[in-house]
Amino acid sequence: MKAIVHVALKSGVLDPQGKAVADTLTRMGYKEVEAARIGRVIELDIDDTLDSDAAEKRVKEMCEKLLANTVIESYRVEFAS
Amino acid sequence: MKAIVHVALKSGVLDPQGKAVADTLTRMGYKEVEAARIGRVIELDIDDTLDSDAAEKRVKEMCEKLLANTVIESYRVEFAS
Repeated sequence: MKAIVHVALKSGVLDPQGKAVADTLTRMGYKEVEAARIGRVIELDIDDTLDSDAAEKRVKEMCEKLLANTVIESYRVEFAS
Repeated sequence: MKAIVHVALKSGVLDPQGKAVADTLTRMGYKEVEAARIGRVIELDIDDTLDSDAAEKRVKEMCEKLLANTVIESYRVEFAS
């Protein structure tokens, strides 16, 4: 089973990397780009012995403890087989 | 309009950051995690004056030139209003 974790900065949190990307694109001539925000996706291969409820609970725990910094980031988890 | 660009390492390309995450999770007791791969998501706010075909073409160009390293990374673009 695959767990796909999307981590993004909460709105209102400054994203200097996104700002650098947006500024660079503008400088390259892509004037239509107004802003950019950068997030990450963590794709986990999870042992199939866990049932999906247990897996969801465990992956949320992983997010809280390691994968996301919940002070400034939000996350959502999605499962695929 | 929003363009959401998903960038991931091509399969076969070593992902040391993903390996570090998987190893750490295992060490933390999440033995069910077999592997992790890390990608990024770039969310672009695009000026609405472009029609969607033009926007798609331009965003693909941005990916080729700046947002993805196409030697080792693949990307896909998705649009949202």
